[in-house]
Amino acid sequence: MTNIIEALQQTLEHEIPLTGHLELRVLSYDEQGLTIGAPLAPNINHKRTAFAGSLNSVVTLAGWGLLWLILHEQEIPARVVIQDSSCNYLRPVSEDFTAFCPKPSPAEITKIVESLRKRGRARIGLHVEIRNATDLAVSFTGRYVMVRVEQ
Amino acid sequence: MTNIIEALQQTLEHEIPLTGHLELRVLSYDEQGLTIGAPLAPNINHKRTAFAGSLNSVVTLAGWGLLWLILHEQEIPARVVIQDSSCNYLRPVSEDFTAFCPKPSPAEITKIVESLRKRGRARIGLHVEIRNATDLAVSFTGRYVMVRVEQ
Repeated sequence: MTNIIEALQQTLEHEIPLTGHLELRVLSYDEQGLTIGAPLAPNINHKRTAFAGSLNSVVTLAGWGLLWLILHEQEIPARVVIQDSSCNYLRPVSEDFTAFCPKPSPAEITKIVESLRKRGRARIGLHVEIRNATDLAVSFTGRYVMVRVEQ
Repeated sequence: MTNIIEALQQTLEHEIPLTGHLELRVLSYDEQGLTIGAPLAPNINHKRTAFAGSLNSVVTLAGWGLLWLILHEQEIPARVVIQDSSCNYLRPVSEDFTAFCPKPSPAEITKIVESLRKRGRARIGLHVEIRNATDLAVSFTGRYVMVRVEQ
């Protein structure tokens, strides 16, 4: 599992250079979902809490990264893009933070795989949360499109 | 007008360090609204187009910056925070980009000012667009809260 986490970290750093400035880290991935994190310092705003643009970048990448991992596991070469999203900034984030994106059910993953194999495309809505100690601080929903790439 | 644009640029750079990595520039501000821009290179993604997190940061800041300018003009010391937003990524952005946030009507601005003076708080929804040459590429709506600061 460590290798796939490291592969995602390297992909993000290599392909999306801004993630280096966010100091984004892929922290864990298992059957429950993907957790990524970032420190507060490089992402601070005028209120000494996390900048909304940084929070939005991290939740967007938590969804993107989870799909990247699933496609990697399923050995389907596909590109993932976000189509639309909505984000509620419920509470200020005043310390280093983590975003968690739950893994879709096996039935949903089977549906994605079948759609990509048959039609070359698939779509899914994912929910991501950032918690501030015990409270929900950011609630995000994103719709992502996956397009199969011929190799 | 140059001075207030420069003041917003310096505020962004000083208070939200990530804007330096986005290479965000405040370009123009008049009665029509605020335009800010960023180059593609530091904001690129795996598809060699602009990263959704960068686009979201820039549109979020276009709304935030417009309210900062209006409060500055009205001489009301207040903090601006985003409450929630929705964003449609309609087309890829494959070159340097600008985001435009139209200025609210005089009647809407009067309503904000009165609410801040009477209740110390005001709320407004703003729409921001990023265009790719002639086409709409990103459509964003954000709700912002302004809270008066006692000086």
